[in-house]
Amino acid sequence: MKGIFITIEGPDGAGKTSVIKELIPMLVKTVQQEIVATREPGGSRIAEEIRELILNPENTEMDIRTEALLYAAGRRQHLIEKIIPALEAGKVVICDRFVDSSLAYQGVARGIGVSEVAKINQFATENLSPDLTLYLDIEAHLGLERINQNKENRQFDRLDQETLEFHEKVRSAYLDIAKEQSERVVQIDASQELEKVVEECYQTIIKKITG
Amino acid sequence: MKGIFITIEGPDGAGKTSVIKELIPMLVKTVQQEIVATREPGGSRIAEEIRELILNPENTEMDIRTEALLYAAGRRQHLIEKIIPALEAGKVVICDRFVDSSLAYQGVARGIGVSEVAKINQFATENLSPDLTLYLDIEAHLGLERINQNKENRQFDRLDQETLEFHEKVRSAYLDIAKEQSERVVQIDASQELEKVVEECYQTIIKKITG
Repeated sequence: MKGIFITIEGPDGAGKTSVIKELIPMLVKTVQQEIVATREPGGSRIAEEIRELILNPENTEMDIRTEALLYAAGRRQHLIEKIIPALEAGKVVICDRFVDSSLAYQGVARGIGVSEVAKINQFATENLSPDLTLYLDIEAHLGLERINQNKENRQFDRLDQETLEFHEKVRSAYLDIAKEQSERVVQIDASQELEKVVEECYQTIIKKITG
Repeated sequence: MKGIFITIEGPDGAGKTSVIKELIPMLVKTVQQEIVATREPGGSRIAEEIRELILNPENTEMDIRTEALLYAAGRRQHLIEKIIPALEAGKVVICDRFVDSSLAYQGVARGIGVSEVAKINQFATENLSPDLTLYLDIEAHLGLERINQNKENRQFDRLDQETLEFHEKVRSAYLDIAKEQSERVVQIDASQELEKVVEECYQTIIKKITG
């Protein structure tokens, strides 16, 4: 495929949303290819419906493997309807969360196991992997502090009910992925000022695009 | 687990619903253990919501792998909320459709491949397999005739839009499963009169229960 597939990953409170909001206009201004910004697990009508099912705070009886399968289903639909067509048209796709999120959240933090969760995601993606992943790293307690400070602007969902220990496991999983797949994943210190984080993300992406 | 897990499988129009309707009261009357009749992919609130998403005729853009993952998700939730607790309590669970349906419909008829679909279902079931499967066998064209005759009593869904060729692939897949797993699957000729089919199902189950 002619396009470039870039994912943004990180624990809750790493600032993904704020970074992407600043980053996209910068890329639109300077990059020749069209930029498509999208997010996981939504991005298509069916995928959004699946997302609602997952994040509904009333669904407390949802089993962790059900959750993992639903994320994989939403991911598949999003990939087919939005990401792959954009990549085939030569666009640069910036996606907020992808398979790494499931490996960290469901595989490690929820305890299903990374290889088990990888298996259903291989089914969902048919092994399509991002060309570049920006991992926004932040200590779990700092991430949680940011979430709490920013409560009014966030939609409270089922995952926000998790403990500090849960968020620490998520971070540790991300650090392992970043170490093991260093040719794909670039780790960025998200505890820095927003402008600095955005600049590092921007430079990393430009370097990838200009090859 | 102390209970007995029995699944009923077969192509559309094989008469599963009619058979189960007759069969359950007979079992309730004669079997000492409690009988739990349930159906795939529903049986729990979350699983029913997933079912609605799958069968909604408006979701024509649904990818076949999304569909397979959603079936596996619904199956998982149904298993956790309903089937496993019943088996642990020593009950006899009679389930309308289970993993074999996905292998036949998504794996073979939709062309994803049996081993691929088996993989996500192993994730969903953690390899819990039925103790007995009754496969109601019917030629595809006879099954379709029955569906058409019975249209007023059936809810028209997305799968009913499929062709004869699709239904032939489903049947052929079921025949392969029945042959390969003959220790688990008992094949029953569903083109016979209803009473005869019910009686064969009943005798097969009683034989299994009384060991």
